[in-house]
Amino acid sequence: MVDPSLLILSSYTKYLFILAHSMALLVEKTTTGREYKVKDMSQADFGRLEIELAEVEMPGLMSCRTEFGPSQPFKGAKITGSLHMTIQTAVLIETLTALGAEVRWCSCNIFSTQDHAAAAIARDSAAVFAWKGETLQEYWWCTERALDWGPGGGPDLIVDDGGDATLLIHEGVKAEEEYEKTGKVPDPSSTDNVEFQLVLTIIRDGLKTDPKKYTRMKERLVGVSEETTTGVKRLYQMQANGTLLFPAINVNDSVTKSKFDNLYGCRHSLPDGLMRATDVMIAGKVSVVCGYGDVGKGCAAALKQAGSRVIVTEIDPICALQALMEGLQVLPLEDVVSEADIFVTTTGNKDIIMVDHMRKMKNNAIVCNIGHFDNEIDMQGLETFPGVKRITIKPQTDRWVFPETNTGVIVLAEGRLMNLGCATGHPSFVMSCSFTNQVIAQLELWKEKSTGKYEKKVYVLPKHLDEKVAALHLGKLGAKLTKLSKDQADYISVPIEGPYKPPHYRY
Amino acid sequence: MVDPSLLILSSYTKYLFILAHSMALLVEKTTTGREYKVKDMSQADFGRLEIELAEVEMPGLMSCRTEFGPSQPFKGAKITGSLHMTIQTAVLIETLTALGAEVRWCSCNIFSTQDHAAAAIARDSAAVFAWKGETLQEYWWCTERALDWGPGGGPDLIVDDGGDATLLIHEGVKAEEEYEKTGKVPDPSSTDNVEFQLVLTIIRDGLKTDPKKYTRMKERLVGVSEETTTGVKRLYQMQANGTLLFPAINVNDSVTKSKFDNLYGCRHSLPDGLMRATDVMIAGKVSVVCGYGDVGKGCAAALKQAGSRVIVTEIDPICALQALMEGLQVLPLEDVVSEADIFVTTTGNKDIIMVDHMRKMKNNAIVCNIGHFDNEIDMQGLETFPGVKRITIKPQTDRWVFPETNTGVIVLAEGRLMNLGCATGHPSFVMSCSFTNQVIAQLELWKEKSTGKYEKKVYVLPKHLDEKVAALHLGKLGAKLTKLSKDQADYISVPIEGPYKPPHYRY
Amino acid sequence: MVDPSLLILSSYTKYLFILAHSMALLVEKTTTGREYKVKDMSQADFGRLEIELAEVEMPGLMSCRTEFGPSQPFKGAKITGSLHMTIQTAVLIETLTALGAEVRWCSCNIFSTQDHAAAAIARDSAAVFAWKGETLQEYWWCTERALDWGPGGGPDLIVDDGGDATLLIHEGVKAEEEYEKTGKVPDPSSTDNVEFQLVLTIIRDGLKTDPKKYTRMKERLVGVSEETTTGVKRLYQMQANGTLLFPAINVNDSVTKSKFDNLYGCRHSLPDGLMRATDVMIAGKVSVVCGYGDVGKGCAAALKQAGSRVIVTEIDPICALQALMEGLQVLPLEDVVSEADIFVTTTGNKDIIMVDHMRKMKNNAIVCNIGHFDNEIDMQGLETFPGVKRITIKPQTDRWVFPETNTGVIVLAEGRLMNLGCATGHPSFVMSCSFTNQVIAQLELWKEKSTGKYEKKVYVLPKHLDEKVAALHLGKLGAKLTKLSKDQADYISVPIEGPYKPPHYRY
Amino acid sequence: MVDPSLLILSSYTKYLFILAHSMALLVEKTTTGREYKVKDMSQADFGRLEIELAEVEMPGLMSCRTEFGPSQPFKGAKITGSLHMTIQTAVLIETLTALGAEVRWCSCNIFSTQDHAAAAIARDSAAVFAWKGETLQEYWWCTERALDWGPGGGPDLIVDDGGDATLLIHEGVKAEEEYEKTGKVPDPSSTDNVEFQLVLTIIRDGLKTDPKKYTRMKERLVGVSEETTTGVKRLYQMQANGTLLFPAINVNDSVTKSKFDNLYGCRHSLPDGLMRATDVMIAGKVSVVCGYGDVGKGCAAALKQAGSRVIVTEIDPICALQALMEGLQVLPLEDVVSEADIFVTTTGNKDIIMVDHMRKMKNNAIVCNIGHFDNEIDMQGLETFPGVKRITIKPQTDRWVFPETNTGVIVLAEGRLMNLGCATGHPSFVMSCSFTNQVIAQLELWKEKSTGKYEKKVYVLPKHLDEKVAALHLGKLGAKLTKLSKDQADYISVPIEGPYKPPHYRY
Repeated sequence: MVDPSLLILSSYTKYLFILAHSMALLVEKTTTGREYKVKDMSQADFGRLEIELAEVEMPGLMSCRTEFGPSQPFKGAKITGSLHMTIQTAVLIETLTALGAEVRWCSCNIFSTQDHAAAAIARDSAAVFAWKGETLQEYWWCTERALDWGPGGGPDLIVDDGGDATLLIHEGVKAEEEYEKTGKVPDPSSTDNVEFQLVLTIIRDGLKTDPKKYTRMKERLVGVSEETTTGVKRLYQMQANGTLLFPAINVNDSVTKSKFDNLYGCRHSLPDGLMRATDVMIAGKVSVVCGYGDVGKGCAAALKQAGSRVIVTEIDPICALQALMEGLQVLPLEDVVSEADIFVTTTGNKDIIMVDHMRKMKNNAIVCNIGHFDNEIDMQGLETFPGVKRITIKPQTDRWVFPETNTGVIVLAEGRLMNLGCATGHPSFVMSCSFTNQVIAQLELWKEKSTGKYEKKVYVLPKHLDEKVAALHLGKLGAKLTKLSKDQADYISVPIEGPYKPPHYRY
Repeated sequence: MVDPSLLILSSYTKYLFILAHSMALLVEKTTTGREYKVKDMSQADFGRLEIELAEVEMPGLMSCRTEFGPSQPFKGAKITGSLHMTIQTAVLIETLTALGAEVRWCSCNIFSTQDHAAAAIARDSAAVFAWKGETLQEYWWCTERALDWGPGGGPDLIVDDGGDATLLIHEGVKAEEEYEKTGKVPDPSSTDNVEFQLVLTIIRDGLKTDPKKYTRMKERLVGVSEETTTGVKRLYQMQANGTLLFPAINVNDSVTKSKFDNLYGCRHSLPDGLMRATDVMIAGKVSVVCGYGDVGKGCAAALKQAGSRVIVTEIDPICALQALMEGLQVLPLEDVVSEADIFVTTTGNKDIIMVDHMRKMKNNAIVCNIGHFDNEIDMQGLETFPGVKRITIKPQTDRWVFPETNTGVIVLAEGRLMNLGCATGHPSFVMSCSFTNQVIAQLELWKEKSTGKYEKKVYVLPKHLDEKVAALHLGKLGAKLTKLSKDQADYISVPIEGPYKPPHYRY
Repeated sequence: MVDPSLLILSSYTKYLFILAHSMALLVEKTTTGREYKVKDMSQADFGRLEIELAEVEMPGLMSCRTEFGPSQPFKGAKITGSLHMTIQTAVLIETLTALGAEVRWCSCNIFSTQDHAAAAIARDSAAVFAWKGETLQEYWWCTERALDWGPGGGPDLIVDDGGDATLLIHEGVKAEEEYEKTGKVPDPSSTDNVEFQLVLTIIRDGLKTDPKKYTRMKERLVGVSEETTTGVKRLYQMQANGTLLFPAINVNDSVTKSKFDNLYGCRHSLPDGLMRATDVMIAGKVSVVCGYGDVGKGCAAALKQAGSRVIVTEIDPICALQALMEGLQVLPLEDVVSEADIFVTTTGNKDIIMVDHMRKMKNNAIVCNIGHFDNEIDMQGLETFPGVKRITIKPQTDRWVFPETNTGVIVLAEGRLMNLGCATGHPSFVMSCSFTNQVIAQLELWKEKSTGKYEKKVYVLPKHLDEKVAALHLGKLGAKLTKLSKDQADYISVPIEGPYKPPHYRY
Repeated sequence: MVDPSLLILSSYTKYLFILAHSMALLVEKTTTGREYKVKDMSQADFGRLEIELAEVEMPGLMSCRTEFGPSQPFKGAKITGSLHMTIQTAVLIETLTALGAEVRWCSCNIFSTQDHAAAAIARDSAAVFAWKGETLQEYWWCTERALDWGPGGGPDLIVDDGGDATLLIHEGVKAEEEYEKTGKVPDPSSTDNVEFQLVLTIIRDGLKTDPKKYTRMKERLVGVSEETTTGVKRLYQMQANGTLLFPAINVNDSVTKSKFDNLYGCRHSLPDGLMRATDVMIAGKVSVVCGYGDVGKGCAAALKQAGSRVIVTEIDPICALQALMEGLQVLPLEDVVSEADIFVTTTGNKDIIMVDHMRKMKNNAIVCNIGHFDNEIDMQGLETFPGVKRITIKPQTDRWVFPETNTGVIVLAEGRLMNLGCATGHPSFVMSCSFTNQVIAQLELWKEKSTGKYEKKVYVLPKHLDEKVAALHLGKLGAKLTKLSKDQADYISVPIEGPYKPPHYRY
């Protein structure tokens, strides 16, 4: 059973609005009859231009097209994706279709869609249901659409980011089993979690028209490949509980994903987001990075290099000692809250920066999150603080003024991922590493669909595939590898062609 | 006599268009009767919000308001400014008005205006004539408007950036003297330089209605304070030629300007511009920085810290040796043109990256300029290259495809300053250093207007004022200075309160 | 059976010398009757002073004394150590004795002993057999002495670095079993490996006087804790072969060892060694770092930060891509051998820089190894190159001149670990991390000696002990950790007090 | 008149000892009859080997030998040098002799001589009077010897560092004039400054045997070239007072000196000195750098890059703002004295770290000076502190323990330049820049000796010579310059072949 606390906790006032709001969401169709729902189809040309630029920066994906395209390995495969609908994801989608797949897609975050990317893909390649600034209700409607392959059935495979598509199927199956057994339907009011209420509502409403929809889905499903820490955590919990319904490949823990996307991606996109949202000079400022995992390491490096003095908060003494070795100060948030100018959460935990912290900050201190959910920052506490005033400078850049001091803090992207909300997320090159892992994972699941190689468990990609992903990205950067001699390979007991490291190697 | 080659050389095709184009430029008026011409007055509220944010980041300017505001030292002074009409400049303008001045303003670059800043100032504080994306003809019309104080006369003081306002007056006076003496009016066709043709046209047309306009201006003018290297160079040329018509303060060579704005400003705004324009991952790429002066040093530092391998081109062996000491490679452009991914010009010279270089570059190599004029990059050669195809990805981001190879280069901001064209220029804090120098220079000129202290020469601010500018920016960053004892001050032969360094000290 | 190729391959000419050389090695005794053999007992006071300084820098070890000293957990334990006899090791040894142990020690490298450290420990705390510049024959004599606890028997525990003490016991037991079964003694001439010949000689000679020495040792032995990659590799091979005779704890793969000592230790001690040996300016030079594992990462960071341009050679595409993300060039040695100034091997493999490479290098190129064995550099090829001339600038700094070009390369520490040979190895603080792992591993083995918890296998320390080691080093650096709330700990499913990360986490 | 406070203030207890001490200093002679006094002539071979290594690293000096050697421009010139007698200086001396000069040399610091360098030069090339660890009395004896060219007269030229040779001549001339006029001899007891007492004693004693020695010297002297800030300051004072007796070239303020030697030299040699003296791990430590001029910038960069958190103290707001832009904290020493681990003075002022600061420091805090005189640190206050205990760990590394707390601080090089005292000073390459300026300055003075070009004033080298020095160092580092076209040179109004920058350019 999935822990509902892992669901996105959006802000209190918005929930009430959403639930009261009646939607009129209609699927549209291209001239070729493919379904979609995007913001503005006229942006498709612009999207196409940026996709073409991104292709040059994504050598791993383009190599997959060259290597696998001719044999059409995905022929017959229906793939549903739930992953930020950006330009980079567009190149991923068109790699899947270039290999023969049919694809339906939604975003895994209400703010992360790039509308021109969505338009280009919807027009040219796949069924897309995504736009920047969805409500939570719209968000789950899109997810449902992306999973709905109609009478022919599907999907065969899922590309997931955060695990929401996987969650919907698991909750759907659970409800259908209960319904079959007892006739009971899910009760949204049984939970306090507003987003989970939406999930239950969707499932309840579906039960009336088709009480076997998710059961059929699960029976057909070959597997899921999951992109992030949070989604992976859910999968391992389900594996531990014995409730996982199909095989899963943990793409997040490929070295070429977690040690690249999380680290180098954030090193790039944190300052990008800060600069686009606030134009603030980073040099000379005091920054606090909450958490010194891969994301925190990337953020701290970026801020330090830009001339900021960086303070790290950590719970883990090992990560804390790493921060110290880089010349960073390690202190609790309480000790520095009134001195710093920029606060970044990267923990993957909740309740990191609370409204009581924000009240003590300097005027116009910047508060943002690049970890995962918006509950790293106490948005609910901020929004419901008596007398607080919200001044929207521009979309995703809000100044919140406290009545007592008349000073304010600047919160980015409403506490959600600021690099996706205020900028364009990670750059193409590093996403090519992550997404090449996705393609390889999908290929592996599909190739082994009938062999029983993958049980209802969570797997990581074998190291030689991880190394292959890296190798596909070297040529673009002008690198040449050294080759082991047979003698040298024997000496260190590895095959000449790799893999070169033991599984526990930390890079 | 000013060297017309120093004028902005815009692209060939655009010139033809501009000259053929008939304008309908009308001055508008606020409800209080103040003149303006901006893009969209409805952006004034947004501009105001960003101005308020910027104020917190510009302690030098805000300290001037506190220190000098009560005594209204600019009472009666009419100031014309020709300087990028950005949010930061808005804070400068409102500092001048807070000290009692009346102000008219235009931008010194056709792409650099932030329209919301222009709107807020036009509505609230000063006469503004500026918008993003002016034609050259519009540009000079705006300059003329900013200098035109009507029957009462003016300006008393000029804030200049690049020297265009100063140029117009000098050329105007020259023409009026010639006209008085010989009855001859300027002949635009006497020059090949398209922009200079516009200048001569404006002056010629003005002569008909008022043959003493610029002469009266020059007689009234107390002086100019100049912001940049290029403008300063013009001033020193005029001083050497004996043609300088009024005193000038060289703000550019204040340490707190050239060693901050140029260096730390570009370190911030180069990656900002690259990321906004192209979203390209800088890590892993090979970059070429042409020129290793202050601007080049800032750019190279930013690129290196972002994980790029940086190659520098230099003519000056001392700067080249500095680059080497930082681990950068120093090679001529020819040696690396086909290997690099990102090219940045910072030289202040012309003809740095020619179309023949661009033809040899990798597909989608990025070419941009953060030096000064767009002639650092051979835009004319590119635009007139037979069969070349221009694909505008988005405004200020163009892909130019060569027919022979079908590969292209991505040129930012049409070869003009990419940090202003593709991003928002330097951040507020570093501009506060530059602009506080401007305020202090203007105060100095105005205070000494009748004392004869300043002759028709170029001056730099005395070191104690330079140090004062720095001091005003320390508190915001939490710094505390050490104080010399009397004994220590005597030991190193400086006053306790400074200045602390000899004039030739290099910082 | 241990692969003899893993043994130290010393230089050819020295072998011949050593074998021809007759030794007169006599054990000496302190006034209290403790055995020792060191270079110069008069350096004991100097050693003591430096030990006292090091104690302040080794908070992990000193905390162990405070926490465990009173209960004397090692009471009755006889510990043999084979690990570089440096000042830092002295603090380790005296931590073991402070916890109740009796200790005998030898170095694990012929060049790494600091003679003043050896003298201080020999005088004050433990039986030491070590000096800087041992011959290989002396080296193995020292190892034998350290293992020889006399009639009372011992050791109970081994602290090993590289696995030589463990090797001697395993080979000894094998020979004794063979001898008992067949009466055959080991034949040194059965191997080409000169060092292994010495091992067999020692064992053969011992068999005559006591044919059960190593068998009794193995029966008594509670276990070994091993410090380095190479020793760990040997242990895993023996585990795989089923020949491991006692439990082993792999200290090397504690995060607080491999990600600190290897990375930050080398970042410190590589430039230290370069500067002490050659005084060469690192800024401006081109460096080649062979291998980009933890050691290579530390070296490359140090060289880059000192202003060198760094090129990396790699076989592993993942590590290569990491290097690229840091702005380093990745090329094979062949491509850069004639352009670089400094060459550093960090691979843990053999035959990295061959004499044919060295012939092509620039005059006075520096060649050194900080990986492990001196066979990373082709010392034998160099020494036997026809007409080559060796000019010893000072001990451990040799210029080798090739007859053809009359140019030379400068080889440090005869190809052995240059940070230990030319400088003083890693600094105390980072060694405190490594050695606190050793103390904790020894405590764990000893505590569980009768419980059967540890079988004849290789173990790593549990993560909570790894985290504890880190925690003990934070206070010295002024760091304060953040504490999880119960709610937060539950949210991410970890105990409040840790461990905080899954086993596969890469840091 | 020279300010005696500028003289080296040595420690109190040593003064008393020195004055009470009777010396027996005898000049020795080589087989060729050249005078010398060095520590150990048997080190000459070792010195020669290191000189040969250094030659490869000093391309500027070697280029001078190639360019000027054949024409023997110094033929007939007698040059006295007072400058740290190191390996690098040896290459300078042999460049002067290679160009035809005859040379006598002493060191300008009692600790900075490298005895093997002194021996090699004494044996092979020039008259040397220098050893590591001179008393002050010995120091001035050496200076006197270096100036004494015997009956033939001399020197013609002086190479000075700190100005002591220049001082002795000026004081000597003053005394001789007074003596001629009034018969009065200098009275050492007229000053409290112990070192100045020694100077007066030497002059007084000389007056008896030759009352015109310094007068003849001054009449013959063509000029001096001065190496450092302190010496230059003395020269400008004498110029201002009208007491300068001969022309002086200020080498210190060549860009290729002050922006290289001071900055990059210290970036190299500060960590070198720290590591050799204390082996302390720099990563993780808190460092305080007092002063953020060129030396401070180099030190702060080195410490930051090694992983230390760096705090800067400054009196100058401009330098303070520069530190902030690099992410460094700026605070007064008082605020951080009890938290930091490493303290470095770089101010060129006195009384920076007082004994009262040291009493409050953490146990084993490291205190050192890389600025200039040992009075940056309050050595006298420390030595005379009641009950303080000095424990010499090794030469130049002392632990001073305070009675009250029984904690101590570690003071390097007795408060003198720690990079020269504890390590080997700046590396050859950067010294090649400085010393090539010296050679060029000496050539210039000698060439113009009869032209009257140089008056009794202080000059800096013209920029084209500064650029030439840089250019001579590019090839060694593999750099290639870009060449200006005629058109480009005209555009920016510089000659094609340089100089490229205006005199006030700051680099």
